[in-house]
Amino acid sequence: MNAGARHLLPAGAALLPAQAWRDDVLAARAEVVPDEVPVALVYNGIAHAVMLASPADLEDFALGFTLGERIVRHPRDVYDIEIEEDDDGGIVIAMHVAAGALARLKETRRARTGRTGCGLCGVESLRRFADDTADMAPCRALATSAAATPIAPAALRRAMTELAARQHLHHATGGTHAAGWAAPDGALHCLREDVGRHNALDKLVGALARDGTSMTAGFAVVTSRASYEMVQKAARAGIGLLAAVSAPTALAIRMADLAGLTLAGFVRDDRYVLYTHPRRLAGQP
Amino acid sequence: MNAGARHLLPAGAALLPAQAWRDDVLAARAEVVPDEVPVALVYNGIAHAVMLASPADLEDFALGFTLGERIVRHPRDVYDIEIEEDDDGGIVIAMHVAAGALARLKETRRARTGRTGCGLCGVESLRRFADDTADMAPCRALATSAAATPIAPAALRRAMTELAARQHLHHATGGTHAAGWAAPDGALHCLREDVGRHNALDKLVGALARDGTSMTAGFAVVTSRASYEMVQKAARAGIGLLAAVSAPTALAIRMADLAGLTLAGFVRDDRYVLYTHPRRLAGQP
Repeated sequence: MNAGARHLLPAGAALLPAQAWRDDVLAARAEVVPDEVPVALVYNGIAHAVMLASPADLEDFALGFTLGERIVRHPRDVYDIEIEEDDDGGIVIAMHVAAGALARLKETRRARTGRTGCGLCGVESLRRFADDTADMAPCRALATSAAATPIAPAALRRAMTELAARQHLHHATGGTHAAGWAAPDGALHCLREDVGRHNALDKLVGALARDGTSMTAGFAVVTSRASYEMVQKAARAGIGLLAAVSAPTALAIRMADLAGLTLAGFVRDDRYVLYTHPRRLAGQP
Repeated sequence: MNAGARHLLPAGAALLPAQAWRDDVLAARAEVVPDEVPVALVYNGIAHAVMLASPADLEDFALGFTLGERIVRHPRDVYDIEIEEDDDGGIVIAMHVAAGALARLKETRRARTGRTGCGLCGVESLRRFADDTADMAPCRALATSAAATPIAPAALRRAMTELAARQHLHHATGGTHAAGWAAPDGALHCLREDVGRHNALDKLVGALARDGTSMTAGFAVVTSRASYEMVQKAARAGIGLLAAVSAPTALAIRMADLAGLTLAGFVRDDRYVLYTHPRRLAGQP
């Protein structure tokens, strides 16, 4: 790879040597692939977790993750975000947060052990899982108040079309997810991408929070499925309507119902499926 | 939903009320969605983690997760697996493992804090991440020895075609991943599905281990991307070739290179891209 080629890559992409098999011939070529970098999240000097993420929009990720995990409840409680590269190729995000948040974090750490691969690691027991779910109830009033502006089916379609058109990292790599925020008319105001769908949503929430965007009008669109944790993150951010390209899970539907969040899945062309709280869509009773 | 309809559902699917928007009309209908259930993993009476998973093939999941996380190094060190439903709708997998494994687990727990949404939570610092990566070196000899039987491009295609055809849970729900194990000629011998791609691979590895299937011939196919953790799980299981429908990440490619694992991505129809160790494919130098 020469320096010129590197400059053409979008943030979060890397160029690596590969061989492409096509028409019974294997030919060497450079492939643009999504980068995936270990990112250590450090609060007031204390290491909290390492996440794998696309190395782009990391300030947004830091704030969105911190809000989504309820380490802080308000953006103003994150005083400072510093991003540094580690000698080993990883990234350290060092945050300075309010003292009260840190106390809660320490309490949580004691109760947690973590594992991999799903949206719920870090929750040690089913009892804690049930507590986390009950924690959704306060979101309900917030989400319901966001119903002020009804969303037309055409707006859903517009937002999803713009989301697909503007996934630059995905267009380059074929391997990343995106989350976007649309105005009630479906115009996409913000888009974030990541190798992980949860990270993409964290980045979106962080970007909107940094920007001071109100969630009381508009809706979120994601290129992925809607799992339990995607709904949880959306509800905690006060998002009233979450539209996903693919399927929701049964648990995500129950969570959305509890949280007062309107959940749409399989949003493709002129179709979609509504799972919860249909009244937020225009024309619904 | 009546009792008859429930019996037609594949394991891991649920029937929920929804409304479908199509041709400008919203019509009530029952939707088959993937179930997603909190599963608590308990070792010798000690709660280790809660994962969200499709409630099917949970014995396979239990063993595959336990091997993949290196809680035990050999299936014989898991003496017993008991699966019980919790009052809150969750599932408890209680395992009895060798005492030595439990000692290692306690050591790990002390060093860990976990978070959500990616393939690496539970690793507290970048230093631990680097250690985990170095841990791949011993896989290398194992994976390289698995190169005995070269795989033809047609075998890759056959395995991927059979994988797509036999994803029953995905056909019913549109929202799950699958991992399969194919013989060198591409005949699919085992397939497991889950809402999570890591879980699907864990289930596959567990099923093969329970069955005593040797990994020295054959290869794995997955419907998802190949992230760092997918490659790590495959390498730890001794799988020599991992073929993915979608993109690998740059970190996954580096991991595969280090582990001696042949990594193929974008395996679709007659095409694929080879990222590492091409000699395992028939006809390659």
